[in-house]
Amino acid sequence: MSPAVTDDSRGPGEETPIAKRILIGEPLTSEELEGQLLPKKMALPIFASDALSSVAYAPQELLMILLIGGTAFLALSPWVAAAVVALLIVVVLSYRQLIKAYPSGGGDYEVARTNLGEKAGVVVAAALLVDYILTVAVSVASGVDNIISALPNLDPWRVELAVGFVVLIILVNLRGVREASTAFAIPTYLFIGSVMLMIGTGLVRWMLGDAPIAESAQFAVQAEDLSQAALILLILRAFSSGCSALTGVEAVSNGVPAFRQPKIRNAQTTLVLMGSIAITMFAGLTVLALVAGVHYSEDPCRLVGFNCEALVQPSLMAQVAAATFGNGSILFFVVQAATAAVLLLAANTAFNGFPLLGSVLARDGYAPKALNTRGDRLVYSNGMIILGLAAVLVLVIFQAKLTTLIQLYIIGVFVSFSLGQLGMVKHWRRELRLLSPKAAKARREAISGLFINALGATFTIVVLVIVTITKFTHGAYLVFIAIPLLSFLMIGVHRYYRDVSHEIAMDDDVHYGSTGDVALVLVGTLQKPTAKAIDYALSGRHDKTLAVHVAVTAEEARDVQEDWKLHNMPVPLVVIESPYRHYAPPIAQFITKYREKHGSAVVTVYMPQYIVGHWWETFLHNRRARRIAQQLMLVHGVQITLVPWLLDSSELIYGRRSRPLLGDDRRDGRLPSYGLVAHTEDES
Amino acid sequence: MSPAVTDDSRGPGEETPIAKRILIGEPLTSEELEGQLLPKKMALPIFASDALSSVAYAPQELLMILLIGGTAFLALSPWVAAAVVALLIVVVLSYRQLIKAYPSGGGDYEVARTNLGEKAGVVVAAALLVDYILTVAVSVASGVDNIISALPNLDPWRVELAVGFVVLIILVNLRGVREASTAFAIPTYLFIGSVMLMIGTGLVRWMLGDAPIAESAQFAVQAEDLSQAALILLILRAFSSGCSALTGVEAVSNGVPAFRQPKIRNAQTTLVLMGSIAITMFAGLTVLALVAGVHYSEDPCRLVGFNCEALVQPSLMAQVAAATFGNGSILFFVVQAATAAVLLLAANTAFNGFPLLGSVLARDGYAPKALNTRGDRLVYSNGMIILGLAAVLVLVIFQAKLTTLIQLYIIGVFVSFSLGQLGMVKHWRRELRLLSPKAAKARREAISGLFINALGATFTIVVLVIVTITKFTHGAYLVFIAIPLLSFLMIGVHRYYRDVSHEIAMDDDVHYGSTGDVALVLVGTLQKPTAKAIDYALSGRHDKTLAVHVAVTAEEARDVQEDWKLHNMPVPLVVIESPYRHYAPPIAQFITKYREKHGSAVVTVYMPQYIVGHWWETFLHNRRARRIAQQLMLVHGVQITLVPWLLDSSELIYGRRSRPLLGDDRRDGRLPSYGLVAHTEDES
Repeated sequence: MSPAVTDDSRGPGEETPIAKRILIGEPLTSEELEGQLLPKKMALPIFASDALSSVAYAPQELLMILLIGGTAFLALSPWVAAAVVALLIVVVLSYRQLIKAYPSGGGDYEVARTNLGEKAGVVVAAALLVDYILTVAVSVASGVDNIISALPNLDPWRVELAVGFVVLIILVNLRGVREASTAFAIPTYLFIGSVMLMIGTGLVRWMLGDAPIAESAQFAVQAEDLSQAALILLILRAFSSGCSALTGVEAVSNGVPAFRQPKIRNAQTTLVLMGSIAITMFAGLTVLALVAGVHYSEDPCRLVGFNCEALVQPSLMAQVAAATFGNGSILFFVVQAATAAVLLLAANTAFNGFPLLGSVLARDGYAPKALNTRGDRLVYSNGMIILGLAAVLVLVIFQAKLTTLIQLYIIGVFVSFSLGQLGMVKHWRRELRLLSPKAAKARREAISGLFINALGATFTIVVLVIVTITKFTHGAYLVFIAIPLLSFLMIGVHRYYRDVSHEIAMDDDVHYGSTGDVALVLVGTLQKPTAKAIDYALSGRHDKTLAVHVAVTAEEARDVQEDWKLHNMPVPLVVIESPYRHYAPPIAQFITKYREKHGSAVVTVYMPQYIVGHWWETFLHNRRARRIAQQLMLVHGVQITLVPWLLDSSELIYGRRSRPLLGDDRRDGRLPSYGLVAHTEDES
Repeated sequence: MSPAVTDDSRGPGEETPIAKRILIGEPLTSEELEGQLLPKKMALPIFASDALSSVAYAPQELLMILLIGGTAFLALSPWVAAAVVALLIVVVLSYRQLIKAYPSGGGDYEVARTNLGEKAGVVVAAALLVDYILTVAVSVASGVDNIISALPNLDPWRVELAVGFVVLIILVNLRGVREASTAFAIPTYLFIGSVMLMIGTGLVRWMLGDAPIAESAQFAVQAEDLSQAALILLILRAFSSGCSALTGVEAVSNGVPAFRQPKIRNAQTTLVLMGSIAITMFAGLTVLALVAGVHYSEDPCRLVGFNCEALVQPSLMAQVAAATFGNGSILFFVVQAATAAVLLLAANTAFNGFPLLGSVLARDGYAPKALNTRGDRLVYSNGMIILGLAAVLVLVIFQAKLTTLIQLYIIGVFVSFSLGQLGMVKHWRRELRLLSPKAAKARREAISGLFINALGATFTIVVLVIVTITKFTHGAYLVFIAIPLLSFLMIGVHRYYRDVSHEIAMDDDVHYGSTGDVALVLVGTLQKPTAKAIDYALSGRHDKTLAVHVAVTAEEARDVQEDWKLHNMPVPLVVIESPYRHYAPPIAQFITKYREKHGSAVVTVYMPQYIVGHWWETFLHNRRARRIAQQLMLVHGVQITLVPWLLDSSELIYGRRSRPLLGDDRRDGRLPSYGLVAHTEDES
C-alpha cells in the first residue's frame, strides 16, 4: 500500500533539499502572506493575460473557419466579430456581479454549488479543472506557434518546445505568486502596447491609403462548395471559434482572494479594464487582418500558390505584424515576442487558478486532502504539479495542434460560464425574495444584477449549444467524457471522506483501559540495530520482553542462538520455524497463541528501522521489515515500534550523526522557535 | 523513502492475492524442493533448448553474411560451418570439465571468480546477465520471425507478438520450474524430431537426384564488390555469425544444482547429448540450405525478382521446410511451429539461469539482497521479473530485429566463454601443482583437462577478437558499454554491503541501560484512532504520557482543546504553534528541549496509522503522518510507535474486522502450524 504520488512539494524535496532550495526559494511565514497579495497593476497581468492572450488566436480561428467557405465569406467576419464582442461585454458585466456576490474565489463553482446544488457545483468544478488544463495547453501551443512563425526553422521541435515551456512555468510558479507577477508584468504590458501600436499604425496607414498587405493576400483559396445548411453551420462555427476570445474572463472571479484590499472593488476594476482592452484588441486585430487581406487556412495546402510542403503558415498575428511593420523588422519581432510571452503568461493564469480551486475542492472534501497542503512557498504545490503534468500530457497527445485544442477548450469554458450565470440568476431571485420592499437601492441593484446575469445566462447557453453542435465531432466529445468522469470521481471522493470521518468520529462507546503489555523484539541477525531495539524495549519496562527469531533454515537459527549466548543478551530468545519462508504469519500466530494463554495484552513489536542517506539505498535493503510490519498491524492488539538506526550514509545527507532534523536542512539551519501557547499542566 | 520496486513476488500479491494465486499457483514447502529437481529427460529440453534453438538462426546468419559477397561465396559456407562445428565440439568438452570442477551452478562466474579474482568474476557475471537478457530477446525475436514466415500477415505485429510472448513466459515461470519443464519437454523433442526428419528427407531426396529447391533459389543477388581485405573480413563475419550456434552451451553448467542425483554425471551426459544433437542439426541444416539453394539476404531488396515491398522474406528454416515438404504442407507447419516453440523455450532457459545467477550474486553481495528472496513458488521471482522487463525493453528498442540482436548477443557469450576457460586453465594448473606425483590417474585427468580447456580458451578468445572486430560497428559496442557499467554497479553494491555490515556488526562498545521513558501521542483532530493510540500509550505505563498537537491555525488548536475537555481525555494536551506550517520540526524541538530539561530519556512517539482496504485509498489520506515519522526518527532518543486503525474498507479486503492476517488470505485460510523449536525459557 505504498503511496504513488507525493502529497506536497516537500515529498521530493526531502531527497534533494539543496537543489530544491535553489529552484523553489526560501520558505515564508504566514505573516508574509499579506505581503504576497496583489496590487491592481500586478493583478492585471496575472489574471488578465489569459483573457488578453486569447486575442492572439481568436481572430485567427474566426477567419480561418470562414475561409473554408472561400474568401467571399470573409465579408461576414465583421458581423461575426461584432457578435463575439457583444457576448464578451455581457460576460464581463455578469462576472462583475459574480465577483461582488461571491468574493471568496470559488467563482462559478461556488455560485453553482450554493444556488444549484452539489451536482451542479461538481460539474462546474470538473469543467473548470479541464479548462485550466486546456488553458495551459492552448496558450502554450499558440505561443509556440507564434515563436515558430517568427523563427520557422524551429518547426520540427514544436511539441518539445511546448513541453519545455510548461515545465519552465511550473518551476517559476513553485517559486510563489509575487515573483511570478513581477516577472510577468512587463511582457503583458509590452504585448498590449505593441499590439495597440500595430493596430494603430495599420489603421492609420489604411486611412492614408497605404493599407498594409499580408503575404497570404496573394494566395487564392480552394473553397469547399457548401450546402445552405452547411453555410449556416459554418457561420455558427466561426462564431463559436471567435468565442475563444472569451476564455479567461472567469480567471479574475476565481482569484479575488489574491487581490489587495478592497478586494472586491479592485477585482471588479481589473475585470472591466481587462474586458475593454480585450475588446479593443480583438476588434482591431480582426479589422486589420481583413484590411491586410490575411488568408489563414485550416489546411495550408488549400492556399493556391503557397508551398505548404516546405513552408510553415505564419500565425495571423505574425502575418499582420509583417504586413504592418515589414517582415523581419524589429517591431515585427517585438510583436511576436510579446505575443509569445503573454501566451505563456496566460498558461500561468491557470497556475494561479487551478491550485486555488483544487484547495477549495479539497477543503469541501471533493478532492484529495493533499491538494489543500500548502508547499513551502505558500502556493498549492500539488495542484501546480498535477496541472503541469496534465497539460504536458494533453500537449503530447494532440501534438500541440492549436485548432484541435481550442475545440476542447471552448466547451468547458462555456459549461462553467452557463452554470455560473444560471446560479447567479437564482441568487438574485432569492435576494429579491429576501429583501424588504423598503430597501429600494438594494432592490434596484438586485434587479439590474438579475437582468445582466439572465442575459449572460441566455447568451452563454446559446453559445454552449452552438459550440456543442458545431464542435462535437471536432474532438469536443472528449470533454464530454472528461467532465462527467471527473464529476463522478469528485462525488466518490466526497462520499469516501464523509464515510471515513463518520466512522472514526468520537462517540461514547470509546472505552479505555487496555491492560497487560508484552514486548517482542524481532531479530533477524544479531547486530547493533537489534541491540538498540532491545535496549529501548527494556527501557520501556514491559511486563515481559521477548526476542523472536523466525527461522527459515536451521543454520540461520543456530547462528543467532550462538551469537545470543556469545553476547549474553539480556532478554530470552524465541525461535519459530517457518517452513513456508514466511515471516509475518508465524509471528502473528505466536502472538495470537500468547494472547489466548495470557489474556488480551497489548503486544508491542519492536523492529529496527534503517535510516539511509541516499534514495538508491532503499533498493539494497530488503524491505521485508516493512512488509512484516504491515502484516502484523492486522493482528489484534498489536502495535509496531520502529527503533531507528541511522546508517553512516545518512550522515552525508543530514550533516551530523547526532540525529539531526530534515526541517533544519530545508531552512539551512535557521531554526525558528515554536512557542508553547496552551498547556493543560506544567510538564516540568 | 517509499519503496520503488517490489522486492519479491509477494509485494504485488498483497494487493491481488486471488488473481496472484490463479496465475502463480499455491506455495510449496522446502521439503517439496527435492521434488522440484530435474531428471535428465526433463533437464535436456529445459537447458538444451537454448543451444538447440540457436540452430534455427545460426545457419541463416552464416549464409546471409556470405551472400553479401554474392552467391559465389556460398561455396565457402561448408568450410565456415565446419569451423563452427569444430569450435562447438571444443566448447562442449571444455564445459564438461567445468561442470565436474564447479558443480555449484556458479558456472563461468564462479570459475573466473575463484581462479582469476573478483574483477574477472564480476565481469563474467555482468556478461552472463547481459547474455540472459539477449537470449530471451534473440530467441523470442527469432521465434516470432518463424511464426511470421508461416503466417506472413502477422508481420505488422512483430514487436507486439514478441513482447506478448515474453510476458507469457514470465507467468509460466513464476509458476515454478517443474511445471515449466513438463510443459516444455514436448515441443523440444518435437523440434528435434521434425528437423531431423526434414534433414533426412531432404538429403535422401537429394541423393535420389530429386533435390528440394527453395523458392529464393531463383532470385539472383546484387552483390557488393569487395576488396581483398573486405573478403577476409566477410568470411570472418560469417564465421562469427555462425558462432551464434554456440550460444546456450553454458546453460547446463549454470543449472547443475537443478539436476537430480548424481548431479554432475547427469549434467555432463545432458551436455554431451545436447552438443551432438546441436552439431548434427547445424551441419544438416546448412548443407540442406545449400542443396536447396536458399538465398537469404540481409536486405531482401537485394534479391533480384523478390518483391521486397509487399512480401516478407521467410526464415531459412521456413524456406528449407517449404522446399522439402512443400509450402503449406502439414509438415511445413509442424516444423515452423516446433521451431517457434523451441525458440520460446530457449528464452525460458534464461528464466532458469538468470535468477539462479542473480541469487548467487546476491548471496556473494554483488546484487541487491532482494534477488535472493525466493518467491512463493520456490523460484527467484524478482530475478525473473527483472529479466523479463529488461528483455521487453531490448525487444522494443531494437524492434525485434534478429540480426541486430545477435550482434550484441555473441559478444557477451564469448566474453564469459573466454574468461571461464581461462579460469579453468588456471584451475588445472593449480591442481597439478597440488597433486602428488603418485596420483597418476588424477594427474592424467588434470592434464587432459588442462589441454582441453587451454584449447577452448584459445579458440574462444580468437573468436571473441574476431567477433569484436567484425561486429563492433554492428551494435556490439552497446555490449561494451553495458558490461562495464554492470560490473561497476556490482562492485559498488558489494562495497556498500561490506561497509554496512561492518558498521552494524556487534562489538564490545554496545552498551545497554537507556533509562527514562516518555510517551508523546500526536493528535491532529480528536477521533477514535487517536483515542486508541492514547489508550495503548496508557497501557504502556510510561513515566509520563503527553498528547501533543501542532497548531497551524488558532481555530484548529481551539477545536482540539475543546474536544479534549468535552471527552475529558485522560492525558494532558500540549499545543505547539507552528508558523511555518511544519509538523515534525516543532515536535522535534519540543522533544529536544524536554530532553535537555529531564535528561536523555527514550521518547516514544505514538501515531495512529490507518490501514486501508484499497490501494487507491492511499491517495486520499494525507501522508503527513508518514513524513512526520520519517523526520522524527532522526531525532536523538526517539522511537516511533504506530497504532494501527483498520478502516472498514480493509474489511472488504481482509475478510473480518478482527485484525486478520494477510498470510491467511494468501493461503486461503489453510494456516500452517509453526513449531517453537528452541526456547531459552518457559514463557508461560
